[in-house]
Amino acid sequence: MEFLRNDETLDDLNLKGIQVIQKKDDFRFGVDAVLLANFAKVRKNAKVVDLCSGTGIIPFILAGKTYASDLIGVELQEEFVEMANRSIKLNKLEDKMKFICGDLKDIELIKSIPKVDIVTVNPPYKLQNSGLINLNDKNAIARHEICCTLEDVIVATRILLKDSGRVYMVHRPDRLVDILCTMRKHRIEPKRIRMVHPSVNKAPNIVLIEGQRDGGTFLKWETPLYVHSEDGGYTQEIIDMYNSDTI
Amino acid sequence: MEFLRNDETLDDLNLKGIQVIQKKDDFRFGVDAVLLANFAKVRKNAKVVDLCSGTGIIPFILAGKTYASDLIGVELQEEFVEMANRSIKLNKLEDKMKFICGDLKDIELIKSIPKVDIVTVNPPYKLQNSGLINLNDKNAIARHEICCTLEDVIVATRILLKDSGRVYMVHRPDRLVDILCTMRKHRIEPKRIRMVHPSVNKAPNIVLIEGQRDGGTFLKWETPLYVHSEDGGYTQEIIDMYNSDTI
Repeated sequence: MEFLRNDETLDDLNLKGIQVIQKKDDFRFGVDAVLLANFAKVRKNAKVVDLCSGTGIIPFILAGKTYASDLIGVELQEEFVEMANRSIKLNKLEDKMKFICGDLKDIELIKSIPKVDIVTVNPPYKLQNSGLINLNDKNAIARHEICCTLEDVIVATRILLKDSGRVYMVHRPDRLVDILCTMRKHRIEPKRIRMVHPSVNKAPNIVLIEGQRDGGTFLKWETPLYVHSEDGGYTQEIIDMYNSDTI
Repeated sequence: MEFLRNDETLDDLNLKGIQVIQKKDDFRFGVDAVLLANFAKVRKNAKVVDLCSGTGIIPFILAGKTYASDLIGVELQEEFVEMANRSIKLNKLEDKMKFICGDLKDIELIKSIPKVDIVTVNPPYKLQNSGLINLNDKNAIARHEICCTLEDVIVATRILLKDSGRVYMVHRPDRLVDILCTMRKHRIEPKRIRMVHPSVNKAPNIVLIEGQRDGGTFLKWETPLYVHSEDGGYTQEIIDMYNSDTI
């Protein structure tokens, strides 16, 4: 198969036949990306930038689930961008998708991208100084704030968004003070939060946040999302996310 | 009954026989106060100030549930302070409780109170400009930010607390951005959050927050608290809170 290397797999998203190339043993997309793509509200003909895009899983899900007209991924690590570009060709999505290899801290690069309606981002969620880190490790770069901080992400987001544009972020609840304070500092007002719990009687371990550029002060809390039901299986909402072509 | 007026009731807290005087038709304590008093971690011999104390329900619950040595309520409205002082006498708690009639924006007054281990507060939770407000209405003063803002509360809290002292606040989730940003601004670091939901599949409508004066950056999320079970009755956790003398 011409598109795939020996150390790669081709994963079917269960979405209009879209398949995404990933490394067999390396950083692979997880539930975070699926939750975020389902949390984002993407209207017809919306222009979207996905920051910290990795192999592009979020834009590929949005390509399957929405009628967005432009989906651009920005990713620092060349190897991931090259894989994402092969996934575009494989899925014949060249007319609406592209990936840019670059650093979101490069303000000139970010300014060169036309303004968008929506930014999605699954940023590194651990502080740089938390735990032992191998700085050459691609997983570490994706998970720890080595190459960009939360504030770098918010600064780039503000530049990318049109007036009143929306950002959708997936992160960890223990960073919520940092997230909310940094968003407000850069006038991206938090508008909507959904907490994700492993099950009904567990503390939340994932947070989904919608912010609006120069939005007014009002924060809406959604019903919680539970991943597992009491019998240990997935809840119907999670099953539907993984199996639905619904837009 | 000498302690009680015609327009008042005497309410039993189910806690070591403690009873609290309240108005029949006026501002009465609700689930917020009970939740906050149960969320607060009060060690033996702790000194506690309760801001926006009303008729003193939180200090009275803490007098029943903990071995705090000093419980001081600060309340602006004279009528409530007078009722709280009668409740102290009724319960023979003069040795460890007192109420101060004063404005928490009066920095000299707040500075005159000896530093404490713990501040509890159930502040007005609505912004002043939200909805129609009768400025002479005691309920409105207790519920809307007419006489004090969230920032006034946090400023007073910082002055009152010893180094590393803790504040416990009950508030509304839609104000969480304001709460977290204002706490961090005044170096009261949010350390622990518990969301309270009417039931499992409802969005949270009450938030309990613990902050620490000059605390380090780490936010712990607790398991959610559900008020009603699926059959419509109260959950066991709520029933236990209302019926337990446990310390």
